Amino acid sequence: MRILVPFDARDPNSRLTPVLTSDERRDFAAAMLRDVLDAVRDAGGDPVVLSTAELDTPFADAVDSDTPLIVDDSPLSEAVGAHLTPADHSGDDEDDGLRTAVVMSDLALATPDALRRAFVTPEIGEVAVAPGLGGGTNVLVVRHPDFEPDYHGTSYNDHRAVADAIGAPFRPIDSFRLAVDVDGPDDLPEVMLHGQGRAADWLIDAGFSVVDDGRARVERDESS
Amino acid sequence: MRILVPFDARDPNSRLTPVLTSDERRDFAAAMLRDVLDAVRDAGGDPVVLSTAELDTPFADAVDSDTPLIVDDSPLSEAVGAHLTPADHSGDDEDDGLRTAVVMSDLALATPDALRRAFVTPEIGEVAVAPGLGGGTNVLVVRHPDFEPDYHGTSYNDHRAVADAIGAPFRPIDSFRLAVDVDGPDDLPEVMLHGQGRAADWLIDAGFSVVDDGRARVERDESS
Repeated sequence: MRILVPFDARDPNSRLTPVLTSDERRDFAAAMLRDVLDAVRDAGGDPVVLSTAELDTPFADAVDSDTPLIVDDSPLSEAVGAHLTPADHSGDDEDDGLRTAVVMSDLALATPDALRRAFVTPEIGEVAVAPGLGGGTNVLVVRHPDFEPDYHGTSYNDHRAVADAIGAPFRPIDSFRLAVDVDGPDDLPEVMLHGQGRAADWLIDAGFSVVDDGRARVERDESS
Repeated sequence: MRILVPFDARDPNSRLTPVLTSDERRDFAAAMLRDVLDAVRDAGGDPVVLSTAELDTPFADAVDSDTPLIVDDSPLSEAVGAHLTPADHSGDDEDDGLRTAVVMSDLALATPDALRRAFVTPEIGEVAVAPGLGGGTNVLVVRHPDFEPDYHGTSYNDHRAVADAIGAPFRPIDSFRLAVDVDGPDDLPEVMLHGQGRAADWLIDAGFSVVDDGRARVERDESS
């Protein structure tokens, strides 16, 4: 299955500004991107990076040279909508051409198991969404030709409404690992508690640790 | 399967103090408790309420008269540990007596489907946990006689360590609906976006609505 992975190569993780420098945010974003691409491949998906800009260091190193790259600086909904169906799609292959999933590049807890379960959720003609915390859409699996994505704001309910409007059954994907996207500092404890890849290692190397005072938070040793 | 549902009947939802009065916190807790008990029953479970105090209004109304009640004012880990195995358990019925799950009473997004998946996750001799946001344990399914719960702090990792120490395979349960417990005001948007029961209705009736400014938050119309 073809998997679009949208990536903001211009100002990634901007909401982590309170805790990370600009260069650190780029390094951390590259670590997450690499983790997500690995998990997608291990789940049997064929990732296509959909980037807002050409990739330079450290992002270029995170993307395997075999992985297709599309550069499109349109807003997210437009960019995903434009590339949801492959450019060379003949229009008559429901089982392959219309099976495109969209996996956000900051799902630092995504595992192959969680993604595999998401990818197989919708039948032909259906749409499936794994909600993000706060009502976003973290994974979108589209098997209907008329679905148009709308990522603005609390897009989970918007995507449900779009599916209803075109008569496509809507399948929620119930996954904690796919619900956690790295939006702000409050999400970092989840990465450190449950992450199994480079993103979690990056936080440890940068001096972060989990503080256990009821609900976990992170603190940073500035000497790191 | 026997399902313990721990409930704080003395000061429920204390972290919602910034947005709810004491009476409102009690009413909202009762709505969540009723939702959770319904979901447990619909998932095929037999709930047992484990309360810190005798139930009066509004909690008594939330608990069906057929539902067993245990009152134990010990700290959570001790209370759960004391009642994890039924008092009348003969000690030789691995398939029934040792299958006890613990489901928190503030899982306002819990559905029968999500709980059913959790209850069947561990095999005999295993332990399964659905993590809560912030590293807690929201659902615990124990099918090993020597497991002792430890709910203090970031208990997800502690429970994994306890399972390792007694040689019980540990099964994570990957569920967004079981990961969201209502801890503080930041959790209310999830209830309003995804809740399907009395707790979500209660918030609407109390004047809360979802504000869509990127990641959802709630605001309250004080005239309600």
